[in-house]
Amino acid sequence: MTGPRFPPSHSFATTRRRFEGTFIGRRRCPRVSEQSRFGCRRWAIPEGYIPGQSVDPNDRALISHEAACLLNPTDDDAQVDITIFFENREPAGPYRILLGARRTKHLRFNDLRDPESIPRDTPYSSLIESSVPIVVQHTRLDSRNPYIALLSTIAFALD
Amino acid sequence: MTGPRFPPSHSFATTRRRFEGTFIGRRRCPRVSEQSRFGCRRWAIPEGYIPGQSVDPNDRALISHEAACLLNPTDDDAQVDITIFFENREPAGPYRILLGARRTKHLRFNDLRDPESIPRDTPYSSLIESSVPIVVQHTRLDSRNPYIALLSTIAFALD
Amino acid sequence: MTGPRFPPSHSFATTRRRFEGTFIGRRRCPRVSEQSRFGCRRWAIPEGYIPGQSVDPNDRALISHEAACLLNPTDDDAQVDITIFFENREPAGPYRILLGARRTKHLRFNDLRDPESIPRDTPYSSLIESSVPIVVQHTRLDSRNPYIALLSTIAFALD
Amino acid sequence: MTGPRFPPSHSFATTRRRFEGTFIGRRRCPRVSEQSRFGCRRWAIPEGYIPGQSVDPNDRALISHEAACLLNPTDDDAQVDITIFFENREPAGPYRILLGARRTKHLRFNDLRDPESIPRDTPYSSLIESSVPIVVQHTRLDSRNPYIALLSTIAFALD
Repeated sequence: MTGPRFPPSHSFATTRRRFEGTFIGRRRCPRVSEQSRFGCRRWAIPEGYIPGQSVDPNDRALISHEAACLLNPTDDDAQVDITIFFENREPAGPYRILLGARRTKHLRFNDLRDPESIPRDTPYSSLIESSVPIVVQHTRLDSRNPYIALLSTIAFALD
Repeated sequence: MTGPRFPPSHSFATTRRRFEGTFIGRRRCPRVSEQSRFGCRRWAIPEGYIPGQSVDPNDRALISHEAACLLNPTDDDAQVDITIFFENREPAGPYRILLGARRTKHLRFNDLRDPESIPRDTPYSSLIESSVPIVVQHTRLDSRNPYIALLSTIAFALD
Repeated sequence: MTGPRFPPSHSFATTRRRFEGTFIGRRRCPRVSEQSRFGCRRWAIPEGYIPGQSVDPNDRALISHEAACLLNPTDDDAQVDITIFFENREPAGPYRILLGARRTKHLRFNDLRDPESIPRDTPYSSLIESSVPIVVQHTRLDSRNPYIALLSTIAFALD
Repeated sequence: MTGPRFPPSHSFATTRRRFEGTFIGRRRCPRVSEQSRFGCRRWAIPEGYIPGQSVDPNDRALISHEAACLLNPTDDDAQVDITIFFENREPAGPYRILLGARRTKHLRFNDLRDPESIPRDTPYSSLIESSVPIVVQHTRLDSRNPYIALLSTIAFALD
């Protein structure tokens, strides 16, 4: 999942250094730590619901799904642990994901298997904890009815 | 609504303790209180509107509805009070909900009855106050037209 | 726009006093001022676009529109000024709105007339400034195609 | 892209000065710097995905697209640099955009060409860095199926 570690010609690391060296560096807000410049380590998504039906179960792009889009803009790999909360039982997890440095991952909750699958048509919530600062956005594609509907929001940072 | 209080094998409490004991614990941001690590006690949702029609009034999953998804990641039960604001009258409420420790609840505004039902096809807003830190997300499913549309956003924290 | 000022039996003011007097009052976060407990005075919505067509121009509920949902949870009336930004000209405004104490208003940008209408099918942004703390959510209903789509997000607080 | 710099009759600069001179100026929150009153310099959008199909590829308004809506409410032009992150390769960019003082720009990721186009049907994330404070909102219009779906959220501020 992690790409090559040697700096490519147009890498973000290069960009960032040059950018900050000119004008951002001098005017940056002084009250913010380095940590939060790249995101947060704890995120919550209260809404969770994987529709059990889809317009076409054979078309992965249009299958009903729920995703946590994770961005790791740091130069360190992230170990990400997800805990799933339910209405009527104790939480499930942790689900453990590796997210490479300078990488994104659009993680479908549908695909989680270990330690257990997430039941369909069931309300849940998720808590996402990372070893390095990341940014998290929640998206659902619902194709039950049979045309698609979308929702998305930045998750809530708990750091 | 509250699940069993003895720790299950994969409980979030267990997860959290282990996780923090390794790497999160050493690098956690020192400027944040314990309170905000689990959410906030006051939340606002300015948008509120329950469509009066649905594609199929007998299919609860697809009935037009508006929900506040509440996540209580703490180890204490939450008492949640909701106040509803209108355009042309004084607020209604409080609507009182219990939310168990380590539980989520996808609360439909459609289902609120006491002290009064929320009128359909009427703009409203809501203020949500909890006895312990929680996280709140707002979602609407609109199935009037007749295919569904979705919206969602993390509510605004007022703590 | 402002309702009666005498306290009704289930008013939010009554609720709030009682609620804080029990358990919220003792555990409330001490680092937050009274101001931000009710919202913020400056809000931005970068996305703005009123579709010029609708599935049925005679059905106000389903006409394509863009709204700023404003919640004033305080006990003071709010004077709200909106400035509209464009891609290729100087901003328009201020558009002046009164929002009563303990009231919501789902303001449609479509309805703004003074000092000028907002052009359809044209990208814009809005800045919302209030005399008292409020909370703002942005919503669009798009019924061009011909089934409806919805988007919504809490606006960005600039206080 | 930058409009005329001489103050027009209804400019935001005029509005703002007058507004603050009356009541906002006296009650403004004292703990916030001038910088954050107009937005932030660093924003992240973890979700990114440009659908490769559209209901009508010849209708620009309804073509599937993803946009970053940028609002620059300051009196200085903004130089904006965008970096695109992927799941399996190093980031692309910077993409450089000019955003005039007191202007908005609804930037379609579909239109980015230099240094390279963004591939369709591919998950990505974006990091947006500006020389002055701005506000950023993320929007996608998906018209694959064949009716449209919309999503939107304020991006995550990293300042």
